[in-house]
Amino acid sequence: MDLTRYLTKKKRIIEEALDKYLPPASRRPTTLHQAIRYSIFTGGKRIRPILTLASAEAVGGRPEVALRVACAIELIHTYSLIHDDLPAMDDDDLRRGKPATHKAFGEAIAVLVGDALLTEAFRLIATEGPRVKIKAETLLKIIGDIAAACGSLGMVGGQVVDIESTGLKLKPSKLEYLHLHKTADLIRVSVTSGGRLGGGTSGQLSALSGYGKAVGLAFQITDDIQDSDTQQDKEKKATYPGILGLDRSKRRVAELTQQAVSSLQGFDEKADPLREIARYIGTRKQ
Amino acid sequence: MDLTRYLTKKKRIIEEALDKYLPPASRRPTTLHQAIRYSIFTGGKRIRPILTLASAEAVGGRPEVALRVACAIELIHTYSLIHDDLPAMDDDDLRRGKPATHKAFGEAIAVLVGDALLTEAFRLIATEGPRVKIKAETLLKIIGDIAAACGSLGMVGGQVVDIESTGLKLKPSKLEYLHLHKTADLIRVSVTSGGRLGGGTSGQLSALSGYGKAVGLAFQITDDIQDSDTQQDKEKKATYPGILGLDRSKRRVAELTQQAVSSLQGFDEKADPLREIARYIGTRKQ
Repeated sequence: MDLTRYLTKKKRIIEEALDKYLPPASRRPTTLHQAIRYSIFTGGKRIRPILTLASAEAVGGRPEVALRVACAIELIHTYSLIHDDLPAMDDDDLRRGKPATHKAFGEAIAVLVGDALLTEAFRLIATEGPRVKIKAETLLKIIGDIAAACGSLGMVGGQVVDIESTGLKLKPSKLEYLHLHKTADLIRVSVTSGGRLGGGTSGQLSALSGYGKAVGLAFQITDDIQDSDTQQDKEKKATYPGILGLDRSKRRVAELTQQAVSSLQGFDEKADPLREIARYIGTRKQ
Repeated sequence: MDLTRYLTKKKRIIEEALDKYLPPASRRPTTLHQAIRYSIFTGGKRIRPILTLASAEAVGGRPEVALRVACAIELIHTYSLIHDDLPAMDDDDLRRGKPATHKAFGEAIAVLVGDALLTEAFRLIATEGPRVKIKAETLLKIIGDIAAACGSLGMVGGQVVDIESTGLKLKPSKLEYLHLHKTADLIRVSVTSGGRLGGGTSGQLSALSGYGKAVGLAFQITDDIQDSDTQQDKEKKATYPGILGLDRSKRRVAELTQQAVSSLQGFDEKADPLREIARYIGTRKQ
């Protein structure tokens, strides 16, 4: 399969849907809606929502059934970046080469854009249109899963540990805990939500969960490896290359990629996009 | 009826439930869970969740069916206070006489406590226990309603207008728009969610919505009147007394209280707590 073509096509579908779901920039309060659109449409690979669509397909579902939840997950990912970039947090002025939301619109608006995106994500899932017939129980389960993955025991918890670990030398086990929650939890739930919407069996959902966790960790380590090239945050942030060294980090990514692909051994060729995405995450820019 | 006794009893029920639903302070990351509990248990009248329970009762439901959603609403209210108090926003060092979350735990943790509480609110509703038999469709509708009331077209939108209006002389219509979204939307949805959980008819829900909107606006104006006594924010924030003067503000509260009580004319004595709460809000500390 041609992964680049697949990713490009899905990215377009997701961005068209995001454009449709978000209030227009002309809607009051206009500053807020302009800042929301600025933050959402600054590029980005849309890897999480693509994983949601690909997981729905992997279990034999139509990707359309997962589109709204996929977009909700991208809203949550974007909110987390906006809040992470705040001066009180990582204090990053740039995001994907453009001024971060707090630089472009001020800190107060950046906090509120994040709050609005997180809220809007749950509204999107809860108001799934009647065109896509999904049981209310399924949507409720997905909301519960996503909220658990993103709350104080998930993504937000991981971010707290990340902040508290800055400047400290972490044990590898604590570093894995940090990345598991800060990054892998949202990626894992992107995958399992897609599988659930596509009608996956509990065995398939469990396999997808293993896949998502492995891909999520590999994704964070690859990010750390790339950052170690640019030396960004090298001294202060807890990273795999900083703690385990570059070679062991790369070996860990290879192991996790293998693990992700193995998780899908019971799946047919409809899971090929997931397999290719795992390999892509394991090798990008290295 | 004895309103003070009613409020005290409901407050205790809500605080016991919050204590049960929230992760213990000993749970990792402990800083985060300590800060969450610090922020939630600093007093507060719990008026929003009490309105949720009282609305379930008003339509003939058991208040227990609304307890989890009531607590979720209190988490959302608390998150909004924590983010509003941030230095980049209203920059308030004290909340209910104690250091605000950002003073007690730092700005980064305060942002993340707010994020965690908002996320946890939706998890609470989505994972409603099996003991309370509520249809998944009802819970999904409530999640959609709450998210709509709290997002960019609701509470967050109101907060943006509030920030943008600081130092400006607003027209009364724009001031009402601001308060409708910043304050009344969450109060209204606290009421309608309780009514929905209690099994209210669509006519009853519509009446409760009118009640909630009126009470919500009255609540904000009363707050402004109290603040005008202490002179806090008088010069810079857009308030009713600042724009309409104290007498007209008090008349507006009386009108809204009357309107709230009239909305309930089709309800029997089970709605007495709602009636009394409207009168209490209209007269507190004036």
